[in-house]
Amino acid sequence: MIGSQLVVSTDTIVEQTHFPEGTIAGNIAKRAMCINLSDMAAMGALPLWFTLSLTLPGDKANEAWLSEFSSGLFEIASRYNCALIGGDTTKGPLSVTICMFGNIPSDSGLKRSSASVGDIIYLSGSIGASRAALELLSNNGNVSERLLKSFYEPTPMIDLGIKLRDIATSCIDVSDGLVADLSHICRASRVSAIMHLASLPFDEEVKLLFPDKYTEFGLSGGDDYQLCFTVPRHLKGSIESISTQTGITLTAIGEIVEFDHTQSITINGLEDQLNLKGYDHFE
Amino acid sequence: MIGSQLVVSTDTIVEQTHFPEGTIAGNIAKRAMCINLSDMAAMGALPLWFTLSLTLPGDKANEAWLSEFSSGLFEIASRYNCALIGGDTTKGPLSVTICMFGNIPSDSGLKRSSASVGDIIYLSGSIGASRAALELLSNNGNVSERLLKSFYEPTPMIDLGIKLRDIATSCIDVSDGLVADLSHICRASRVSAIMHLASLPFDEEVKLLFPDKYTEFGLSGGDDYQLCFTVPRHLKGSIESISTQTGITLTAIGEIVEFDHTQSITINGLEDQLNLKGYDHFE
Repeated sequence: MIGSQLVVSTDTIVEQTHFPEGTIAGNIAKRAMCINLSDMAAMGALPLWFTLSLTLPGDKANEAWLSEFSSGLFEIASRYNCALIGGDTTKGPLSVTICMFGNIPSDSGLKRSSASVGDIIYLSGSIGASRAALELLSNNGNVSERLLKSFYEPTPMIDLGIKLRDIATSCIDVSDGLVADLSHICRASRVSAIMHLASLPFDEEVKLLFPDKYTEFGLSGGDDYQLCFTVPRHLKGSIESISTQTGITLTAIGEIVEFDHTQSITINGLEDQLNLKGYDHFE
Repeated sequence: MIGSQLVVSTDTIVEQTHFPEGTIAGNIAKRAMCINLSDMAAMGALPLWFTLSLTLPGDKANEAWLSEFSSGLFEIASRYNCALIGGDTTKGPLSVTICMFGNIPSDSGLKRSSASVGDIIYLSGSIGASRAALELLSNNGNVSERLLKSFYEPTPMIDLGIKLRDIATSCIDVSDGLVADLSHICRASRVSAIMHLASLPFDEEVKLLFPDKYTEFGLSGGDDYQLCFTVPRHLKGSIESISTQTGITLTAIGEIVEFDHTQSITINGLEDQLNLKGYDHFE
């Protein structure tokens, strides 16, 4: 397509690392699709196609499992108009790799590297639900339909990403945890950030269920797949209109400040309450 | 690029399924690259870029392992001018997924679905070496450098694929075994095939090492990553010139015949000597 750029993302989910053993096939497929679509959203891209590499143990290579997996996969694919164009099936420990392709008008993709001092930091939706769902699942607790869905079928913010193309100076999706992901922006942009604990949109149900843990779940739990983005102060009005148009809550959670080599992120209101590390893939 | 088409392929290799436990990191990377490049070759594509999804157990997420892996990866990537454009790293059982992108002039890609009755079937190089290497590796036998390389670093037939664009009516790379892969062509083209056992280019070293098994290794062992392709009879001369130009042996191994629903592939000279199933991924 002339005047447009192809963008590509890839994400793998592995049993036990990214979803519990025994997860039903449809939910595995949905989660794999949604987190890859979320990468498209974070670039402001329109998703077009994807390839699927599915690694399966022998006991799952049967019609029942594959048909359940396919239903979940194509439910999400058709919702976002994204076509399966190829793939690979392999025997081994259960994992799913999707490679997704999308497009953006030339030179208008959202990046991590252009946040500027003075920009306001915004976050879509709320945080903490996905980590809370995982906690409940791991302890065989009762999980509400809404929390379950936040884990298995997080909503990719495709429309929001597209609307932010000409407005946001940087953008990322919250997969590793808000603190970790915002520090990716800070590192790439050579700036620091201040967040205000009181303005963070923690999930209300999670606040009630985990009064001692909801800040940790929200700040470092990850898997919320909300967009965290920065916007020059004078474009605040545009963000308010986008929020009205899309019906998505967009909360100002802090601001970008001069690079501080001692601390890339400061959280006002949070006095050493918790361990602020993001998700470490190899912990 | 105007007047050209983007082609995409993806392939996953998993420890124990596709390479033995304890394989050195550089060889894993080389093998992952070479088999994906071979998919490009089979389409007549020029490889351009790739993404890498690497799933690693905790004990391998260290600098020594990753540096060895990177060396192997970039050795092959730079040999074929193919750039790493993104990826994902994940904790879990060892596996590597590469998604590779290449281009072909519009509408000139090699397919599996256009073989015609009367076409000659050709095969590049020789077959059986890779399966023999695996047999020796699995039994801790002595493996020659040449056989080892055929397993870990099979040569992707990129130049040959490009030269075949306007000549071959169909093409596939031999990954699952010659019989299985040729039957993919037959199924997609709705034709059958006759091969002549006496004309098959079995690897000479493998013949000596495995006098009882070399036909099986060559016909159903797989992993040779040679190109098997079909050519209209009147273009025989072009194949001879390509063989001379590239220095690659191209052997006529049979012909395409009318679709026979009882048998998609007949091998003259092979009287029930062996079980002719190709590699079954979930056996």
